[in-house]
Amino acid sequence: MTKSQPLLSLLLFIFISGTISQSIIQLSRDHDVYCNGWRFSVETNDVGYWDHVPSRCVSYVQDYMTGDGYRSDSEVAASYALGFAKTVEIAGDGKDAWVFDVDETLLSNLPYYAVHGFGSEPFDELSFDEWVDLAEAPALQASLNLYKELKQLGFTVFMLTGRSEHQRNATAKNLQLEGYSDWERLILRESSDQGKPATFYKSQRRLELVNEGYRIHGNSGDQWSDLFGFAVSERSFKLPNPLYYIP
Amino acid sequence: MTKSQPLLSLLLFIFISGTISQSIIQLSRDHDVYCNGWRFSVETNDVGYWDHVPSRCVSYVQDYMTGDGYRSDSEVAASYALGFAKTVEIAGDGKDAWVFDVDETLLSNLPYYAVHGFGSEPFDELSFDEWVDLAEAPALQASLNLYKELKQLGFTVFMLTGRSEHQRNATAKNLQLEGYSDWERLILRESSDQGKPATFYKSQRRLELVNEGYRIHGNSGDQWSDLFGFAVSERSFKLPNPLYYIP
Repeated sequence: MTKSQPLLSLLLFIFISGTISQSIIQLSRDHDVYCNGWRFSVETNDVGYWDHVPSRCVSYVQDYMTGDGYRSDSEVAASYALGFAKTVEIAGDGKDAWVFDVDETLLSNLPYYAVHGFGSEPFDELSFDEWVDLAEAPALQASLNLYKELKQLGFTVFMLTGRSEHQRNATAKNLQLEGYSDWERLILRESSDQGKPATFYKSQRRLELVNEGYRIHGNSGDQWSDLFGFAVSERSFKLPNPLYYIP
Repeated sequence: MTKSQPLLSLLLFIFISGTISQSIIQLSRDHDVYCNGWRFSVETNDVGYWDHVPSRCVSYVQDYMTGDGYRSDSEVAASYALGFAKTVEIAGDGKDAWVFDVDETLLSNLPYYAVHGFGSEPFDELSFDEWVDLAEAPALQASLNLYKELKQLGFTVFMLTGRSEHQRNATAKNLQLEGYSDWERLILRESSDQGKPATFYKSQRRLELVNEGYRIHGNSGDQWSDLFGFAVSERSFKLPNPLYYIP
């Protein structure tokens, strides 16, 4: 064994480990670029139906949801909602309305999804319903601020959720605990609504509001099915949600 | 002057310049987080009408448009469009249609916007029309690939653009030079369409296609005004565009 062999081995080791870590960094960067594109296509509805986060994007989604990204995107969206709300002339008859979705709009289920794979696991209704019954979902801070500002401006607020009527008490309790108050009505799925696509169920409920004389100026929701359909609002505000899709 | 003074000055200099560069890095990171949120709100239509990129986001938009982001987001969106297209049963009667917008969909005006402030300057029709007349806009590669795949699958392709009838020759020439061929019809604004909001003009034209018996399965465009309205396609594919907004 010559004396140059240990040095050679060391240099080879440095070279190989350098190449490997470079490859890992490049792979991670490629994943981020791809997952940014995936999230773009999710948020613009280009993806259409999807039932789980692609495996290569799970840690990306975790970083987005728990880091600055989700919070900031929600805040910027809320700022545009408020900017529009301030341009609405409130008639004073109580008919100027704003519709909010609940899950991932007023309340965040991030604590639930954090222990259920950040959207990578198939939806489990049983464990999610148990979570709902706890009434422990934190407010989405940007929405809570917007909600309070809208109340100040004189809007009548409706909550229109895909949750079921049997979850009314837990939902109302959770909302109150998190600082929401003075809503006009909390609308949940009745038994006759079960099985309806969310777009249709929510459109029907909005149409009832319109028929009652409400002018729906704004609508905030994390799903396009909160916002599309008929009896749509004057302006819609899509909040981010790379965790799940509701048709 | 004691001998410790030069050392102290050096340490102070290092400390201050370190603090300044830290602040610059933090500011740049804050801008990126904000501008990601702004772009989210632009792409989901939360912003509504806007006429220029916010000054704090101009270099962010430049990086996005000239780096991997724009290319990758376009590719991912096109991959979902193709995935859907492959599920369509082509009847063979030539009536299975796909509608493409032109600017920032089939063709990229990035060379124009690169010398006009990346969306930070107010739109200048005169200089933009001169650019159009050059017929030198490159293809958006992801769209060109999608276009060719759709033709292979048997779709009848329509191009529906906000450009005016007097720009027909330059537009057709540009499209052909960039590799687009065998489209069914290139539809431009006629003089009677001037002043119509894009959503209405494009919906009217799509309705004419529907009335001719075409089944519009897919629609690709970078503006929501390409995709919303009436006679909408079965599935819509929003492409990224943080440069400008067309109502």
